[in-house]
Amino acid sequence: MAPKAFIFDVFGTLVDWRSSIARALTPVFLQKGIAADPLVVADIWRGEYQPAMARIRSGNRGYVALDILHRENLETVLGHLGVTDQFTPEEKTDLARAWEALDPWPDSAKGLKRLRKIGLIAPCSNGSIALMSHLARHAGFDWDCILGAEIAQDYKPNAAVYLASCAALRLAPADVMMVAAHNSDIEAARQAGLQTGFFPRPLEHGDPAKAELEPSDDFEVVAHNLEDLARQLGT
Amino acid sequence: MAPKAFIFDVFGTLVDWRSSIARALTPVFLQKGIAADPLVVADIWRGEYQPAMARIRSGNRGYVALDILHRENLETVLGHLGVTDQFTPEEKTDLARAWEALDPWPDSAKGLKRLRKIGLIAPCSNGSIALMSHLARHAGFDWDCILGAEIAQDYKPNAAVYLASCAALRLAPADVMMVAAHNSDIEAARQAGLQTGFFPRPLEHGDPAKAELEPSDDFEVVAHNLEDLARQLGT
Repeated sequence: MAPKAFIFDVFGTLVDWRSSIARALTPVFLQKGIAADPLVVADIWRGEYQPAMARIRSGNRGYVALDILHRENLETVLGHLGVTDQFTPEEKTDLARAWEALDPWPDSAKGLKRLRKIGLIAPCSNGSIALMSHLARHAGFDWDCILGAEIAQDYKPNAAVYLASCAALRLAPADVMMVAAHNSDIEAARQAGLQTGFFPRPLEHGDPAKAELEPSDDFEVVAHNLEDLARQLGT
Repeated sequence: MAPKAFIFDVFGTLVDWRSSIARALTPVFLQKGIAADPLVVADIWRGEYQPAMARIRSGNRGYVALDILHRENLETVLGHLGVTDQFTPEEKTDLARAWEALDPWPDSAKGLKRLRKIGLIAPCSNGSIALMSHLARHAGFDWDCILGAEIAQDYKPNAAVYLASCAALRLAPADVMMVAAHNSDIEAARQAGLQTGFFPRPLEHGDPAKAELEPSDDFEVVAHNLEDLARQLGT
């Protein structure tokens, strides 16, 4: 059965967070004379992402939007670097908004446009509604609506996030395809009853050896990239 | 202070629900030999809207999406007409989806496009995320995200709906303008701390004498239509 809607992981799957965050850090580090490698700092910042969400997924902390977690995690990163005192609160808040301006992979906007001819398209990201709205403008994504963590008040890969997204579309999970370049994300979506689409993003972490190049299961569609996934679905 | 985002009433303000619903009813009534006036039936159907939401606003019923209320209210309307038995459940469900295909007023899409140059734009409607997503495609509205009743799990004019919409935008209410052709809607938004914009829709109910032609308060912007509102805001 062809899906009636497609929902997408965003960080890593549709946008290149690592290069984009490093690019945002570069002029700031130059200006402040901070000698750290922006790519390494981007990795450290992203490294705080899963532990921060884990506290919420486990129920040890109520839901707070990813914008706030990014801002908190930046404090941790600057602390590691020993440069906290070189930033005003406003500078830190501005820097945390770099997550709203991540560049798309070259095929992302074109692939979304093609899939939108088949059904509704929406992010199912851990990013907030505001973050996804700003990012969509930067990356040139024309979503039908913004789904994901904020409407579920929970974080992927908890099933609630996929199920709340399907419910908001007023579709059965079996009529919705979750698309991601991360196996754990679509394994969880499959477990929740959704269709699944996978393709790799070899450069997400710079070194292809650090990427998930192969699917971990017989997902409904396995493709080279998003345009190839759209082509396999006949659009 | 110029608003950083604009949120909109949709039914009546941006789309002509009455003519559109009547147009959807016409071929169905012809086919089934039902002699009722489609415009009158559209008014009766819409007449069930406020009482259905009132039960939820007052806490007497948990939140259910407007799609379901429209479907339930259609049963009531067909009962009044004495024609319930002439419809299968599937036909009634299809007919209730007429609310997803309402035509825009001539200036709506153009006005939204202009305001989108100033800030984020989103519906703050009592319609669900799915309903608003389908309607946006039909009407040619390019939203940044879908806000309103479903993310608040409540119905306008309860303050929670305006406040949840601002919170999802990560903006203070004072930085958001609520735009509507209905005074009660923007009075409630103003009470919740938002900026407000008003223009009349003289033909919403067919007869201009039934429309709200004048603002009930000194709202931040009072305009002739949405394009005029955009022009007054300098775009």
